[in-house]
Amino acid sequence: MPFAERIEKALHDSLAPLNRKDAPPKLAAAIPYAVFPGGARIRPTILLAVATACGDDRPELSTAAAVALELIHCASLVHDDLPAFDDADLRRGKPTVHRAFSEPLAVLAGDSLIVLAFEVLAKAGHHAPDRALALTGALARHTGAPFGICAGQAWESEPKVDLLAYHRAKTAALFVAATQMGALAAGQEAEPWTELGDRIGAAFQVADDLKDALLTSDQIGKPAGQDAAHLRPNAVQAMGVEGAVAHMKDILAGAIASIPSCPGEAMLAGLVTAYARKMTVLPEAAR
Amino acid sequence: MPFAERIEKALHDSLAPLNRKDAPPKLAAAIPYAVFPGGARIRPTILLAVATACGDDRPELSTAAAVALELIHCASLVHDDLPAFDDADLRRGKPTVHRAFSEPLAVLAGDSLIVLAFEVLAKAGHHAPDRALALTGALARHTGAPFGICAGQAWESEPKVDLLAYHRAKTAALFVAATQMGALAAGQEAEPWTELGDRIGAAFQVADDLKDALLTSDQIGKPAGQDAAHLRPNAVQAMGVEGAVAHMKDILAGAIASIPSCPGEAMLAGLVTAYARKMTVLPEAAR
Repeated sequence: MPFAERIEKALHDSLAPLNRKDAPPKLAAAIPYAVFPGGARIRPTILLAVATACGDDRPELSTAAAVALELIHCASLVHDDLPAFDDADLRRGKPTVHRAFSEPLAVLAGDSLIVLAFEVLAKAGHHAPDRALALTGALARHTGAPFGICAGQAWESEPKVDLLAYHRAKTAALFVAATQMGALAAGQEAEPWTELGDRIGAAFQVADDLKDALLTSDQIGKPAGQDAAHLRPNAVQAMGVEGAVAHMKDILAGAIASIPSCPGEAMLAGLVTAYARKMTVLPEAAR
Repeated sequence: MPFAERIEKALHDSLAPLNRKDAPPKLAAAIPYAVFPGGARIRPTILLAVATACGDDRPELSTAAAVALELIHCASLVHDDLPAFDDADLRRGKPTVHRAFSEPLAVLAGDSLIVLAFEVLAKAGHHAPDRALALTGALARHTGAPFGICAGQAWESEPKVDLLAYHRAKTAALFVAATQMGALAAGQEAEPWTELGDRIGAAFQVADDLKDALLTSDQIGKPAGQDAAHLRPNAVQAMGVEGAVAHMKDILAGAIASIPSCPGEAMLAGLVTAYARKMTVLPEAAR
């Protein structure tokens, strides 16, 4: 089954327990609303690609890991859009969860998605409990504090920002989780896959900075110009459009070089190249 | 080591990773602020009591389970106090997290605490991975949706409330988690311990309703009269003070009767009786 289909089906299955008469109806609607229709599902796709490159001998576990990672990503979008943060009206071209439902339901939908991510891993883990625990650890480390996306978001509340820690935690963390969890689900060590995730994450941050600076809200389906509005560090401000594009290409070349030797090395290099092409098309078209 | 000391020490240890130079300082301060000083730590105490009654042959795992459960409880308090929910200024006699820090930091502290709970279980799980996965599943089920405290809180956004589902999820869920996780940490089955947790939770809800209706904000260290203010169902409204006290005593008698046969049966019965005494003293003094 192609990665995209496998991810969508498993995401749907993970939300099935919400279809109960004794579930609170609005929350049971808000949670799927936050997950479907999805974005590019890039993190779970990278996870499955790394798992496949490593042999993917436990596909039920790598699928669960992909779902768990995407649920955490969706949760982070719901909470980041809240009035206390970006106060965003739109996400993926439709009203944000707090606009479509309410602020309490957005907080609770995010919380529920975080919990569900770990529940999905626990459920899939009984055939390979050691791997499931390692996956839980890797996901938690890159989601919470001090290294995860919660810490990344929290840097925006600081008067003095540790830029390296900020970018690592805010964006790269879930990409490192993707590569590490792909390897762990296939019974491999996580550490050799860290640099690949780190570099893809860094490239993504630059691509996002370019989109935020160059495109309109309509084009990206969410408010544009948010970095300037919130005084957030942005690569385009620091090095200009040309500089940022060149920087992104450098990072991705290094990403391909960092791929550990494994049966699927060439396939993975191809995937990163395809993403690199996609990421540079947008800013070049906008110029 | 007495339960209270064991819980406090393990909670402190679980937060140690936040003491890093590259952690965002405000979040690293907000998280411990939400955990210390604690309330009565009733849920983890019940968990350790059940684990002890079942033999507690993996104390490092039962301790981790107790910490995980208390971290989830603390997270729920931080999020419940947010402006979008109770908009509370005080908790445990001091400013709530969003008042002391900010709303973004309160959202992120709650999120981080949820994640940390599952991380603590994963870290302690390597000696008994099957038990750790069962603990993760039990904690997730009683925290998220459709059965956990997230669902319980979400019922307050519904125009028509399923009262049974509401009380089960809002309050009883974490007490059921406590008894089930105590048994699971000691290698026993969870199900026989469900009724005990359910009944302790139901009694707690009635005790809380009595406090909310009878005591002042100063006496309980958080805003009083919140149920009436938020039109939430309350046992005192439904059956009066006398009726609510009698109802609570009935529930607790049933709780003691429900304790499964085990080495620590008498110790557990004594614990529930002691809690019952504590819970009825307050409303009787207030009359």
